[in-house]
Amino acid sequence: MAGRNWFNELHTSSSGILLEISKPIAYRKSSYQEIWIFDNPVFGKVLVLDGCVMTTEKDEFFYHEMLAHPALTTHPKPERVLIIGGGDGGTLREVLRYPEVGKATLVELDRDVIDLAKRHLPSLSISFSDPRAEVVIGDGAKFVKTAKSSYDVVLVDSTDPVGPAEILFSEGFYRDIKALIGRDGILALQCESPFLHMDFIKSQKKILSSIFGRVNFYNAVVPTYPGSLWSFAFASDSVDPLELKRKPPEGLRYYNEHVHRAAFTLPPFMRDELER
Amino acid sequence: MAGRNWFNELHTSSSGILLEISKPIAYRKSSYQEIWIFDNPVFGKVLVLDGCVMTTEKDEFFYHEMLAHPALTTHPKPERVLIIGGGDGGTLREVLRYPEVGKATLVELDRDVIDLAKRHLPSLSISFSDPRAEVVIGDGAKFVKTAKSSYDVVLVDSTDPVGPAEILFSEGFYRDIKALIGRDGILALQCESPFLHMDFIKSQKKILSSIFGRVNFYNAVVPTYPGSLWSFAFASDSVDPLELKRKPPEGLRYYNEHVHRAAFTLPPFMRDELER
Repeated sequence: MAGRNWFNELHTSSSGILLEISKPIAYRKSSYQEIWIFDNPVFGKVLVLDGCVMTTEKDEFFYHEMLAHPALTTHPKPERVLIIGGGDGGTLREVLRYPEVGKATLVELDRDVIDLAKRHLPSLSISFSDPRAEVVIGDGAKFVKTAKSSYDVVLVDSTDPVGPAEILFSEGFYRDIKALIGRDGILALQCESPFLHMDFIKSQKKILSSIFGRVNFYNAVVPTYPGSLWSFAFASDSVDPLELKRKPPEGLRYYNEHVHRAAFTLPPFMRDELER
Repeated sequence: MAGRNWFNELHTSSSGILLEISKPIAYRKSSYQEIWIFDNPVFGKVLVLDGCVMTTEKDEFFYHEMLAHPALTTHPKPERVLIIGGGDGGTLREVLRYPEVGKATLVELDRDVIDLAKRHLPSLSISFSDPRAEVVIGDGAKFVKTAKSSYDVVLVDSTDPVGPAEILFSEGFYRDIKALIGRDGILALQCESPFLHMDFIKSQKKILSSIFGRVNFYNAVVPTYPGSLWSFAFASDSVDPLELKRKPPEGLRYYNEHVHRAAFTLPPFMRDELER
């Protein structure tokens, strides 16, 4: 590996991933974090926030499709969607594939993430120019506390539950979201790895279940994320997560109606922990 | 990471994994390969052959359960099982969970892998002492060419399709297996990562389809394998891979009848390639 430059990220205290930096693309220290984009021959452009891979051009579809589509296909009428975080634009792009969505509001803390994504990650950030997209630069937790609008679907596309994003996994935050979506809305959020973070997932289940009538988890594979098996929480009072109300859009790479059902099929090691 | 020792394995030309070597356990240069076992604080003991992670104590259940159980639950009467490779014993352990299995023959090229697994990986190698286990040290491709017995299920638990294992993905090898299992048998094999090796999987589909009446693929996540999303081929003339004939054994961690069905649900990017 002589003469080559390598990025490494520890996913646990003693394991991680290696990615060759074939070309540094951008580096910025914003008010909130270090933002780094580099090119990798296999994964394409890689977005790194504070040392953690957020997304790569090659494997981003797993995550963004699976955060957005289960909620969007099961809500009876998803006209207004709120995305908390997701400054790279990937989740927004998936949401705006639905003609039913009249407005998607994305609340991102760090303006620089959006700025760099627009410049360097066009396949992700393409939908910022959609007239139905509204961008708010600000704190997602504060936004949901004071928002005047209501929403049909809220997607939390956050970083890991440490530092600034910790509040995005808190009971107060979820209660504020519940107030915005009412009985008929859906909250979906990324919820870490069942392989590595099962205690965290259990604690999230407990918090969410104290607020929402129905709480389910579903999984997808995200090759560059810790543990690779990644979970998402789906919370609602009234929506059955297995009852699809519409066909998913054409052109998806990971998600379809069958993958949807399969994703909610939890392996025993996870189901047993969540049903205890 | 100063003062700590790290194993790294490239999964592509420019990406890979990092595992801390908290304690070297064994190293042997056998007649066929370099065998290395070390301890990692998160993954437990890690078995490495020629620089590639074969299995770890923490994540081996994903792979071994998913190689063995789909075939074992769908065969009408799996009395005789043949395992090609699998010297760590993990697949054998899963096979022998079924009381229906009267004999399981494991053909491993490298005696030293079995020897080291017996010494250092007891949770995997536990079933070598089962009276129904028969171990043959030898070349799997030669074995199936000259075998006199017939088998109900053949599981190919090979290393990657380069070097000595290349022949285990060849048409001739599959034809020899077909002759041993007849119309009613099942062949299941590990078949690399849909995320990274789709061309290889397509070529395997073509070869297998020229020999077997029904060829399906199914997926599982294996966190320490390249691409993390891992595929398996399921080939038979008569067995419907979705029709379970028996309940899986108790105590599994990844596999159950629902996960079985979900595993055969391929994401569009894979299905589209295989149906072309």
